[in-house]
Amino acid sequence: MGGAAGTGQALRLQAFAQIFPFQPTSLRFSERVKAMQKTKVAIVGMGTVGSGVAQLLLDHGDRTARHAGRVLWLEKVVVRDKSKARLADLPEDVLTDNLQDVLDDPDITVVAQLIGGLEPARSIMLQLLEAGKDIVTANKALLAEHGPELFEKARQLGRSIAFEASVAGGIPIITNISQCLSANQLSSLEGILNGTSNFIVTQMDRLGMPYDQAVKIAQEKGYAEADPTMDVDGTDAAQKLAILAHLAFGAHVSWRDIPRVGIDQLDPADLQYARELGYRIKLLATAHLDQAGLELHVAPTLVRAGLPLAEVQDAFNAIAVVGDAVGPVFYHGLGAGQMPTASAVVADIIDTAVGRTKLTFQTLELFSSAGPPRVRLRAFDELPGRYYFRLHVADSPGVLAKITGALGEQGISIASVIQHEPDGRGDGTTVPLVVMTHEAPEGAAGRAATAIEGLPEVCGNVVRLRVKA
Amino acid sequence: MGGAAGTGQALRLQAFAQIFPFQPTSLRFSERVKAMQKTKVAIVGMGTVGSGVAQLLLDHGDRTARHAGRVLWLEKVVVRDKSKARLADLPEDVLTDNLQDVLDDPDITVVAQLIGGLEPARSIMLQLLEAGKDIVTANKALLAEHGPELFEKARQLGRSIAFEASVAGGIPIITNISQCLSANQLSSLEGILNGTSNFIVTQMDRLGMPYDQAVKIAQEKGYAEADPTMDVDGTDAAQKLAILAHLAFGAHVSWRDIPRVGIDQLDPADLQYARELGYRIKLLATAHLDQAGLELHVAPTLVRAGLPLAEVQDAFNAIAVVGDAVGPVFYHGLGAGQMPTASAVVADIIDTAVGRTKLTFQTLELFSSAGPPRVRLRAFDELPGRYYFRLHVADSPGVLAKITGALGEQGISIASVIQHEPDGRGDGTTVPLVVMTHEAPEGAAGRAATAIEGLPEVCGNVVRLRVKA
Repeated sequence: MGGAAGTGQALRLQAFAQIFPFQPTSLRFSERVKAMQKTKVAIVGMGTVGSGVAQLLLDHGDRTARHAGRVLWLEKVVVRDKSKARLADLPEDVLTDNLQDVLDDPDITVVAQLIGGLEPARSIMLQLLEAGKDIVTANKALLAEHGPELFEKARQLGRSIAFEASVAGGIPIITNISQCLSANQLSSLEGILNGTSNFIVTQMDRLGMPYDQAVKIAQEKGYAEADPTMDVDGTDAAQKLAILAHLAFGAHVSWRDIPRVGIDQLDPADLQYARELGYRIKLLATAHLDQAGLELHVAPTLVRAGLPLAEVQDAFNAIAVVGDAVGPVFYHGLGAGQMPTASAVVADIIDTAVGRTKLTFQTLELFSSAGPPRVRLRAFDELPGRYYFRLHVADSPGVLAKITGALGEQGISIASVIQHEPDGRGDGTTVPLVVMTHEAPEGAAGRAATAIEGLPEVCGNVVRLRVKA
Repeated sequence: MGGAAGTGQALRLQAFAQIFPFQPTSLRFSERVKAMQKTKVAIVGMGTVGSGVAQLLLDHGDRTARHAGRVLWLEKVVVRDKSKARLADLPEDVLTDNLQDVLDDPDITVVAQLIGGLEPARSIMLQLLEAGKDIVTANKALLAEHGPELFEKARQLGRSIAFEASVAGGIPIITNISQCLSANQLSSLEGILNGTSNFIVTQMDRLGMPYDQAVKIAQEKGYAEADPTMDVDGTDAAQKLAILAHLAFGAHVSWRDIPRVGIDQLDPADLQYARELGYRIKLLATAHLDQAGLELHVAPTLVRAGLPLAEVQDAFNAIAVVGDAVGPVFYHGLGAGQMPTASAVVADIIDTAVGRTKLTFQTLELFSSAGPPRVRLRAFDELPGRYYFRLHVADSPGVLAKITGALGEQGISIASVIQHEPDGRGDGTTVPLVVMTHEAPEGAAGRAATAIEGLPEVCGNVVRLRVKA
């Protein structure tokens, strides 16, 4: 342990007594903390989340010590370039650009691996596991791609990987599913898992603005990356859903196999029509289990106004689960951002240092090759659903009968219809028509949409969205 | 272990293979489960919750085994009277009326103590701890009264007490506060913690019915006891708030010291006026921490419509917390009932059997005499708040000026006023007047109410309710 670092943290530890508001002149707590066992922790990667984690460990050692029953001592922070300015004010000897400093120090037992992307994140994680470290990570994309390899390695070596921060940021859904609700067979999990998409959709809905403009605002406010593709095309939500489906239902599924539609094609007109029908549109990640198997998909979905999921605003995330014993449970919180994510990472560091993570990891059904999957994935085409169709039709008699006919041929009946005045789209002679259906299989709905698009009275494409059951 | 019980459970274990839907003809899982280590569990008290717990352990051993990595074997169920009919279909040798059968069996390591009330629950819990058992309980009243004694005993003996089911039933708020959010300093916790009260208030609000009638419906539906006093007078919510305040803020507080008002004096007229002002009334348990200390109280409170807490219906519970890292997190679920409570008890049994509870219990700040409280409780009189006043006044000029004056003398300014036509109350010459104030200390608001009641133009008592900040 470096002298400067040691002194810096010792000073911070002495300052604990002052943080405790009602014994400002007492050294009792400080002495108590100093007498505590230390768990040495390292952070690899000092981006936004890494800086937040360092800040919690350094400035709030009192609370981590209180909850862990030991001092979580930030021994090393590994960065690519030591000269780059850092958000957190780090003791000098803590910073290093050499991963080997962590790998070679057997006293460092817990490492928060907070590098984004796939490589070198994957290789570093493997090296850390080989060196005997327990890992905490927020890198959901890495788990989505290389989870089986990384978890297999951890299991072989008797190590653990904690990943609360990888899904839904500040909502502790991983612990809630894998621990708090473990007496339940879950039958349903529905989530707004991508805050960027939800922010954009909320903007479009509230202000009636087009997609591109809402993306620009999201970028200005820091809610969207310069290239927001993964967030808005459903990839990010599908990666999170794959992890949750594995934990909650024992599904063995790659995110690539989850049918997904993003919000990037969403038209403000549909948000408006949905409102008229008493719905909101949300990018919903859905998992439903019944006798027929597990339904999984990510799609912009009409959610009835007044339901908690419909009222989730801005960059918030939310998850509604239903268990056979507990009934419905609803979680709402910030799904991303520096400190909400750091909160999840530090909770994982505490759990790992205390030993809880190891116990949980032993029975965790994630990326495990032991035993067959517990559920069958349902084919997308066979999934039941209600649908919202929007189309432009010639304003002439008999059109509705033809559309009803095309739906009827697929066994789909209509629940409600809105026909409006011309809205200035198309060639001026067409009117927008919105149809809500009763339940039908996804495949039938798709075939009906194709048939409707083929009608001479129908102008352009049919917009088709799922409606939450 | 009795032969009949053994056979019964062995048969149930063999049936596991059939529960796993995709290997119906394989004995692999069944063999795997049979080869697993067993943790022997006992239940003391076979009321509604006990029956639910037995049902989960016996009929869903597959999932508990999966999450615990071992079989949770229900070895004994202790009841007062063996001849009474039971809800759960128990193997014959499991049932006993002799607690000694559990105390004397060293193989039984985890006991769900599910007897209600204070005695003999307290003595039984002490005996179980002395006999080396780890305890799971749902008895919040017992913890509220005897928590310090029971926790001290458990700590001395190196045992643990798990109590997730004691607060908010199916919402795993204990684990979330003491584990998932442990990186945070919480600044606020607001909860609807009593489902009976919320059901009654929801009925009154929705149907405009008086309190007594709503209580009758709650009793018919099984949401209220024959004597609902503890639920409706704020006692139950205060007991839960005391536990949460201890965990979340390190407060050392007895529920008796938490100022509390119930819903038993609530008038449907106030629900109606609150609605006109854009609010709902909820029995809110509130904890706010700032530099001045910790604010704690339970009271019917006006909550702005549209806020998640305002929209909690029927017998649901909800808890909104704010942490300095995680930001706001909101939980919603069933706060009581057989299976939601059993879900929490069984999750605790799993955590205890696996060893997580022991690790958490070591650092748990509940009923601990080690160290001074971390926070100062604020005196009720000094608490800031906004208030709703409803009164009946003579319909004559100058009345409003006098009331404004009485409030002004206490430094309270008015935010809004509603004056209605006579509502048939009082002697027919008075009109109802509703005043919403800006922020003022509780003590000043109380003195203003007394002063207003003393005005000759004011008829009867002043109704005064808090408004959520």
